[in-house]
Amino acid sequence: MDLTYQQDALSRPLRAGIVGGGSGAFIGAVHRMAAQLDGQAQLVAGALSSREQVAHESARDWFLSRSYSDYKEMAKEEAAREDGIDFVIIATPNFMHAEVALTFIAAGIHVMCEKPMTLTVSEAHDIERALQRNPVVFGLAHTYTGYPAVQEARSMIRQGQLGHIRKVLVEYNQDWLMESLEAGEDANKQASWRTDPNRSGISCCVGDIGTHAANMVEYMTGDRIDAICADLSTFVEGRQLDDDANMLIRLAGGGKGTLVCSQIACGEENALSIRIYGSKGGIEWHQQEPNTLIYAPQGQPKQLLRTAVSLQAAEAQYLTRTPGGHPEGILESLAGLYLLFIEDIRRYCKQQPLQGGYPGIQDGVRGMQFIQAAVNSAKRGAQWETLPD
Amino acid sequence: MDLTYQQDALSRPLRAGIVGGGSGAFIGAVHRMAAQLDGQAQLVAGALSSREQVAHESARDWFLSRSYSDYKEMAKEEAAREDGIDFVIIATPNFMHAEVALTFIAAGIHVMCEKPMTLTVSEAHDIERALQRNPVVFGLAHTYTGYPAVQEARSMIRQGQLGHIRKVLVEYNQDWLMESLEAGEDANKQASWRTDPNRSGISCCVGDIGTHAANMVEYMTGDRIDAICADLSTFVEGRQLDDDANMLIRLAGGGKGTLVCSQIACGEENALSIRIYGSKGGIEWHQQEPNTLIYAPQGQPKQLLRTAVSLQAAEAQYLTRTPGGHPEGILESLAGLYLLFIEDIRRYCKQQPLQGGYPGIQDGVRGMQFIQAAVNSAKRGAQWETLPD
Amino acid sequence: MDLTYQQDALSRPLRAGIVGGGSGAFIGAVHRMAAQLDGQAQLVAGALSSREQVAHESARDWFLSRSYSDYKEMAKEEAAREDGIDFVIIATPNFMHAEVALTFIAAGIHVMCEKPMTLTVSEAHDIERALQRNPVVFGLAHTYTGYPAVQEARSMIRQGQLGHIRKVLVEYNQDWLMESLEAGEDANKQASWRTDPNRSGISCCVGDIGTHAANMVEYMTGDRIDAICADLSTFVEGRQLDDDANMLIRLAGGGKGTLVCSQIACGEENALSIRIYGSKGGIEWHQQEPNTLIYAPQGQPKQLLRTAVSLQAAEAQYLTRTPGGHPEGILESLAGLYLLFIEDIRRYCKQQPLQGGYPGIQDGVRGMQFIQAAVNSAKRGAQWETLPD
Amino acid sequence: MDLTYQQDALSRPLRAGIVGGGSGAFIGAVHRMAAQLDGQAQLVAGALSSREQVAHESARDWFLSRSYSDYKEMAKEEAAREDGIDFVIIATPNFMHAEVALTFIAAGIHVMCEKPMTLTVSEAHDIERALQRNPVVFGLAHTYTGYPAVQEARSMIRQGQLGHIRKVLVEYNQDWLMESLEAGEDANKQASWRTDPNRSGISCCVGDIGTHAANMVEYMTGDRIDAICADLSTFVEGRQLDDDANMLIRLAGGGKGTLVCSQIACGEENALSIRIYGSKGGIEWHQQEPNTLIYAPQGQPKQLLRTAVSLQAAEAQYLTRTPGGHPEGILESLAGLYLLFIEDIRRYCKQQPLQGGYPGIQDGVRGMQFIQAAVNSAKRGAQWETLPD
Repeated sequence: MDLTYQQDALSRPLRAGIVGGGSGAFIGAVHRMAAQLDGQAQLVAGALSSREQVAHESARDWFLSRSYSDYKEMAKEEAAREDGIDFVIIATPNFMHAEVALTFIAAGIHVMCEKPMTLTVSEAHDIERALQRNPVVFGLAHTYTGYPAVQEARSMIRQGQLGHIRKVLVEYNQDWLMESLEAGEDANKQASWRTDPNRSGISCCVGDIGTHAANMVEYMTGDRIDAICADLSTFVEGRQLDDDANMLIRLAGGGKGTLVCSQIACGEENALSIRIYGSKGGIEWHQQEPNTLIYAPQGQPKQLLRTAVSLQAAEAQYLTRTPGGHPEGILESLAGLYLLFIEDIRRYCKQQPLQGGYPGIQDGVRGMQFIQAAVNSAKRGAQWETLPD
Repeated sequence: MDLTYQQDALSRPLRAGIVGGGSGAFIGAVHRMAAQLDGQAQLVAGALSSREQVAHESARDWFLSRSYSDYKEMAKEEAAREDGIDFVIIATPNFMHAEVALTFIAAGIHVMCEKPMTLTVSEAHDIERALQRNPVVFGLAHTYTGYPAVQEARSMIRQGQLGHIRKVLVEYNQDWLMESLEAGEDANKQASWRTDPNRSGISCCVGDIGTHAANMVEYMTGDRIDAICADLSTFVEGRQLDDDANMLIRLAGGGKGTLVCSQIACGEENALSIRIYGSKGGIEWHQQEPNTLIYAPQGQPKQLLRTAVSLQAAEAQYLTRTPGGHPEGILESLAGLYLLFIEDIRRYCKQQPLQGGYPGIQDGVRGMQFIQAAVNSAKRGAQWETLPD
Repeated sequence: MDLTYQQDALSRPLRAGIVGGGSGAFIGAVHRMAAQLDGQAQLVAGALSSREQVAHESARDWFLSRSYSDYKEMAKEEAAREDGIDFVIIATPNFMHAEVALTFIAAGIHVMCEKPMTLTVSEAHDIERALQRNPVVFGLAHTYTGYPAVQEARSMIRQGQLGHIRKVLVEYNQDWLMESLEAGEDANKQASWRTDPNRSGISCCVGDIGTHAANMVEYMTGDRIDAICADLSTFVEGRQLDDDANMLIRLAGGGKGTLVCSQIACGEENALSIRIYGSKGGIEWHQQEPNTLIYAPQGQPKQLLRTAVSLQAAEAQYLTRTPGGHPEGILESLAGLYLLFIEDIRRYCKQQPLQGGYPGIQDGVRGMQFIQAAVNSAKRGAQWETLPD
Repeated sequence: MDLTYQQDALSRPLRAGIVGGGSGAFIGAVHRMAAQLDGQAQLVAGALSSREQVAHESARDWFLSRSYSDYKEMAKEEAAREDGIDFVIIATPNFMHAEVALTFIAAGIHVMCEKPMTLTVSEAHDIERALQRNPVVFGLAHTYTGYPAVQEARSMIRQGQLGHIRKVLVEYNQDWLMESLEAGEDANKQASWRTDPNRSGISCCVGDIGTHAANMVEYMTGDRIDAICADLSTFVEGRQLDDDANMLIRLAGGGKGTLVCSQIACGEENALSIRIYGSKGGIEWHQQEPNTLIYAPQGQPKQLLRTAVSLQAAEAQYLTRTPGGHPEGILESLAGLYLLFIEDIRRYCKQQPLQGGYPGIQDGVRGMQFIQAAVNSAKRGAQWETLPD
């Protein structure tokens, strides 16, 4: 029996496009795999590079149907096609995020954007306003929020299982920039733009990974970082942006803690972790062992809550694909964001209210405010800086 | 620019079909995600169930182009189509593996088959002979061999880094059958067929997971299990097949050890692990933390070899998709087998020699011999049983 | 205020003596520290070596009051003194255990003996009979049973918290004999006698550490190993005794499992671990992280039971000296045996019934029977061998 | 042969006394066990409580020879006796440390003092001056510095193995004060004085455990904490002192980091840990698994350096008592300080220069300065505060 699908987004896999992420940039492939993982979307078009030949060769390698070297042309043509893309993935260096996002929003195409969302707070507000005018579905790739264990932690806190949050310790440590990879003739491509203020913005380490840590705090706790005291450092000689930061944080609800990020922490790969201590319980989660959530109910032994086995939250179970003991990883986590994002696109098509659950425009604005506050605090000698409400 | 692809398997994603794995069976979805992960294949057709309505509804959920309720019809039609499938995935209960595999092999369609390969050694030889007549590419889904850390271990042993292998301790413990899930009206579907001799064969636990453990020993060491002494148990009352086994093993090359598997080991999820001790070094790997390979060179501190960071083998690096500290999991491992399998299909199309690297027909035959030997040994009161060469 | 103590064993620290363990032998110092740790005993006399000068110099280093070069003289003189020793510690190589033990038992001096208790089953029965005639308090240094977590596990099983025991996996792996340390002019002293049948008995690895593993199974489960199928190996060329063993075991109560021990497992230090799976729960304990007992109640998350925090058994709490998170180690474990042993000596003095709780003569006899059965089984080509009741 | 020892401190175990630590206070017993562990000292006298009956009963329980209810009388009498104590252990609540220390120093008796050393910086300087006048041997019980792995880390850094220190993350988290244990009729005794400014000083959490963390940073790195920015909190209602702190720290040598301590971190037992990242390598150590030092040389796999197996430093090996895989714990760590302290007393007797190696008066003064700076910083709204050189 031959099956056919209607041409509306409700009864077929969505069509996706991507800007950036061509040959040599791992993040493009990550989005391609994640977006397609659950069979709800198909990548069909791309502006994978601004260099025409690279763009087309990359597109061919990925078996895309349509290749562009100019993202504006892509937005225009795809918006016009009957079989045009439903959403676009923005996987360029930071400095292009805003212009690309604004272009696709204007074209009425839904957007999944890499983080940090923009170069500046002002650009972030530009996107915010554009979305008010043109309310397409907008997702921000805070990749780590799609893990079932993260969903469980968030749900536990929301339900009061930890009581009043007292202390939050969040870290995101790496070591890949512990030497000057950006220097010299054979400079590492990603290191080059990450450490370049023109392409990366006012911060390297805080912008790239500190934002993940800050978002994780707010995502899990449902609370807001109210103020920070940030000590930023540049340990590698000649580097123009920070490669390490230590911060004190205070939450609006009264919790306190530290936020640490580094790209020079020798031996650390991608060590995002968070510990949250409340008046009734504590939790601990490590991204590098993402299928375990350590839960310490007051006065009782620590428990190992495990993906697919003992996570209780509906959101956690929804984002689990395999039985217990079959590790799910980073691609599955990002795919989880896509699942929620795609559902919202389908709701959008049915003119139903969006449900969110994935990081979006508010997280993007908060992220830029966080970066700005961290840099301000550091410039004033690591003095306290309050974030906007 | 619109990109078009030639219609040969060399310049387009391969087209895949699947038999079994419809609604309610997790393994089908796992294969769908894994086969498509790297963008080298697209699932387009399926005989997802022998019940027609279930088959078509499942196919629709997965957005397949063509749905069948009879796998024989599927083999015939797909072989005849210009755009027919290049390979089929067999995800049925064990008892159907042989007949489905023989049908598709006869139709000249490449096969990726779930394990254990067949119900009996004799059926395994049937497939072996069919492949001699019709040498299509044949893969066996020993899912765990696609992990980069497994590839690294195999490569280290092959290169002599551990010296002469002295001791191997392999385990695969679960607890999902620690009670009689197969009994009663609302019996668990998978538990029912796994514990039913007619659909599962002569063994439940050894057949389902003991074979993974045995295969891992032979895959990693490159050596052969020469003899086993197997103590099989059925701890849950009323159950017809084994739910637990403890074995002594001897390798052809002189190594000795134990192979333990269980489906009643309370608290264990999917705890496949292996430790190999040689005259120059030891290694340890746990499937539930698959991105770490613990390496103990003689007289030196243990080292934590990590996916994407410190694995040296080309095969390990080839099967890695993300940078260090970004966990890859079970779907990526199985996707790795598909990558290697698809490459061989492309070589087949180019009439080049196949390269293997993924488990295949020999592993399937060995697996059936292993199950048979385990059951024979146990029946004789856990006496030693020699495996065929 | 000057405090004085009565001269009976009820109101002063006990006086201890030691045979063996002089200069160069770490085990003597371990016993000295453990016996004295809780302030209930004082080492005052020793026959630390059969070489007179070594004996006296070692005794002086330890600030002993009395030094002997002949243990028989020591037994005689100490038994005669008003302030003679209350108990003796036997820390010689295996071949001397029996004669020393018999001498001190005959002298009416309580005995703490290193394991394996004797060279042969027959010698073990000699001691058993001697104790029937002269029922002094007799302890056997199965050092690892004094850990609070081991006590907790034992108590949990006794109370039925795990239900019916189905599977036991016990291991004791080391690597210190992975090369021929016993050969050559500068041979390692301990390696020399451990691998010498005249001084060590019929087994090296099984006798030295396999007995610990077997005792741990029986101590924790309260059940008896009924039969074993043992595959012993000698991997290092020229060695006369086993350096590795893999065994299947069956418990009298119906449980089954494996017992693995090795002295050639490259990278392993002193890796004694045990996992016990019952019909209602499972537990896991690793000697190298002794303050954690992993408990898996059926259908619930794994719990980390921790010394001083969440261990419930009175015996566990009794043997804990510091608050939570202050690691207690091997010396404290052995000191725990001494605490229980000394309490029994005080009961003996008060003519109260002994309470045990520490391994004793029955464990010693069982240990020798286990070694004998393992060697018998291995000699018969790793066939099943039943142990005496 | 009866052995006799000369009556000078060079050829006998030292005689020790203790002030405080009587019945109900665990810390007294910990010092007793640790001081005596290696057989180099014997506790003979005590002023275990200011309540006479409690003092004498506690002394009797410990089999002490002499009991006092007044520490001043003890100092006087012991100094006068031929067989008087060589050193005194101060295990009282904080507020008495200074007066007791000054009394014994004046009496010419060596001192091992609990930390924090005093109530105030001013008292710390009093002791410092007293020692200049009367230079007896003075040790401070920063218990955790006696672990072999801590010694190894210190040695590695001193030898430049980590390169230039860039980042230090130190934590000491507990949860035992997460509720108001100090309130009510059956108040916990230790909680009562720890949270009482009159007996504990200006800080509870920072004073009790923050000082351990700060000392560990300076002890391991050999560098000085130059400035801190400290956010102190009191989460439990009605409590008068801090129960939690988060700090930014800057080292004199250019390193930066965070220092976190808490007594309300639900689920944490005694979680002291430190991570140090340099330009050539990183290390990580956790007090609750004290026998492993994780070492990450730049660009190479992480290594697990283990007590008794792969620690290289002479100091580390000197403080190790058992072979690899035999866990040593907190009592052994403190016993290590006593070993070094006693050696210095023997050097003192021989009029040789002291060698130190254990925390002493300078660490005590630094500790008080650290507490004062933390409280000052917090009072000023968590602003930066510079510590004296």
